[in-house]
Amino acid sequence: MTLQIQSHQEHAPQELPQVLVLEPPNVFKAYEKQFLEKFQFLKAWESEIPTEQFLTTHARSIRALLCSDWTPITADVLRLLPSLRVIVTSSAGLNHIDLSECRRGGISVANVGTVFSEDVADMAVGLLIDVLRRITAANRYVKAGLWPIKGDFPLGSKLGGKRIGIVGLGSIGLEVAKRLEAFSCSISYTSRKKKPSISFPFYTNACELAANCDILIICCALTNETRHMINKEVLSALGREGIVVNIARGAIVDEKELVRCLEQGEIAGAGLDVFENEPNVPTELLVLDNIVLSPHCSVLTEESFRDMFELISGNLEAFFSNKSLLSPVFDE
Amino acid sequence: MTLQIQSHQEHAPQELPQVLVLEPPNVFKAYEKQFLEKFQFLKAWESEIPTEQFLTTHARSIRALLCSDWTPITADVLRLLPSLRVIVTSSAGLNHIDLSECRRGGISVANVGTVFSEDVADMAVGLLIDVLRRITAANRYVKAGLWPIKGDFPLGSKLGGKRIGIVGLGSIGLEVAKRLEAFSCSISYTSRKKKPSISFPFYTNACELAANCDILIICCALTNETRHMINKEVLSALGREGIVVNIARGAIVDEKELVRCLEQGEIAGAGLDVFENEPNVPTELLVLDNIVLSPHCSVLTEESFRDMFELISGNLEAFFSNKSLLSPVFDE
Repeated sequence: MTLQIQSHQEHAPQELPQVLVLEPPNVFKAYEKQFLEKFQFLKAWESEIPTEQFLTTHARSIRALLCSDWTPITADVLRLLPSLRVIVTSSAGLNHIDLSECRRGGISVANVGTVFSEDVADMAVGLLIDVLRRITAANRYVKAGLWPIKGDFPLGSKLGGKRIGIVGLGSIGLEVAKRLEAFSCSISYTSRKKKPSISFPFYTNACELAANCDILIICCALTNETRHMINKEVLSALGREGIVVNIARGAIVDEKELVRCLEQGEIAGAGLDVFENEPNVPTELLVLDNIVLSPHCSVLTEESFRDMFELISGNLEAFFSNKSLLSPVFDE
Repeated sequence: MTLQIQSHQEHAPQELPQVLVLEPPNVFKAYEKQFLEKFQFLKAWESEIPTEQFLTTHARSIRALLCSDWTPITADVLRLLPSLRVIVTSSAGLNHIDLSECRRGGISVANVGTVFSEDVADMAVGLLIDVLRRITAANRYVKAGLWPIKGDFPLGSKLGGKRIGIVGLGSIGLEVAKRLEAFSCSISYTSRKKKPSISFPFYTNACELAANCDILIICCALTNETRHMINKEVLSALGREGIVVNIARGAIVDEKELVRCLEQGEIAGAGLDVFENEPNVPTELLVLDNIVLSPHCSVLTEESFRDMFELISGNLEAFFSNKSLLSPVFDE
């Protein structure tokens, strides 16, 4: 062990493989020391010269890029990096990367796979119980000293028996389903296509799903097809007793329409971890009582960060030693 | 159906069987109209004469009593009611009733059995996720507009893999275990005695259990044996990373000691639906950030109330027609 540490320390940073970072992902900040033992980072965000010039300067040497989901990797960025061969993103979602341009340019992409799926599913269930049983409001009630004055807290709604509609039955959706079955909920779903191995009822679109359930949980990826998929028609099909939980991406929901439905009581409540224009949240939502909001933190646990650090490092190490990526997005 | 309603209406209230109520349970308030179709109520709390005199006046006729868990049915009360033959309580807990005196006097007791178990278990899981993933604090963060200013929310802690210790593996404890297994938690428990049909590891007391788990969930009844069972020693065995969730009765935990441990960081957090001196909550708890408080509302759902109304009515109807109680506390 001592030997190993010495061997790490003996590497001068300039001998370590070089990775470009435009803006530091959270995991980079949390595990910077550990990352620096393995890689040398070109930190575009610390440079005083404009990003484009920074990229042009280093263009020839940059073969690997680490990014998070809030750094768009557009065709324009890719054009500046002709030697780029791998992008590792600290997200499960890929909507910030121009994937067709990557394919065309022979650039491999690795995401963090299912590292977050359990945490995100836990958060979905936590937000849902919170909305149904008004835990956040109850906490406010007690802390404001209202219990001795106003007496019993209003009745909540029971989770057991609720009809849950999962929008997008990927790894997160399946984890949500597994959890909510243990609460005696019934599960149905919509997805690009019916999954032959799954016995939950399938609906061909979100609107039909919404018409047949009490609660919609959004678990799909943001793509051109899913943008604003949860629109006025879907929310109206869900109805006045309906609840929306979104732990996927804000833009899958037509946020203006959601705000209107919540304000006018056209749906009953919402638990939202994601928003269309983060970190900005529509001000109308800040004053509503029938919603619970969290700041896109469904993936933020110490355990996920450790797993994510290991997976990102593993992907970069695999790339630099000409091995297969651990969590490739394209078939290799 | 019309005939049935007419038949109800034809009953003059004084012909309906008589039930004493000292203070109205919540369910009585919520379902008063439906109760009044079936029974005639002697409402002690509405009378201007003192309760003792009220009871003495009606002593001979009172055979049935409906109460909730915040009305103590002591030996003194029972002595005033020599004709009493049944007590129906709108609670699962029985610590407010002098059960030995009831047995001695040949008074049957019915509680609401397991009507609440699922709701209480849901609340336990909701409080736990809230504490681990800081949902209530996250909601405060977003609503206070801190997200755009301060950026990412602090890391939470992952539920999956946590070692859950259930104190009291009755119907609520079993429902909690079923739910948390679906989150990939490991379960162990303590109970008056080991349950032969259960495969979860058993510890003979709360202290040993606490030493072997990350999270204690209190699910047992309040009795002389369990009062202040979760004391300084148990909390210290749970340790600095430990979390306590209490959805049972406040007095099972030594509240002063719990407050001290939370203030001094000797445990990591708590989710509390119950308190020693409800509706009063220790003021120290109101300012702590590592806890989530709710006002004894784990049973308060519309669905539970409907089920509870039906079970209470059913018990009273059974009594008045000389049938077996639906949910007797003593073997009959």
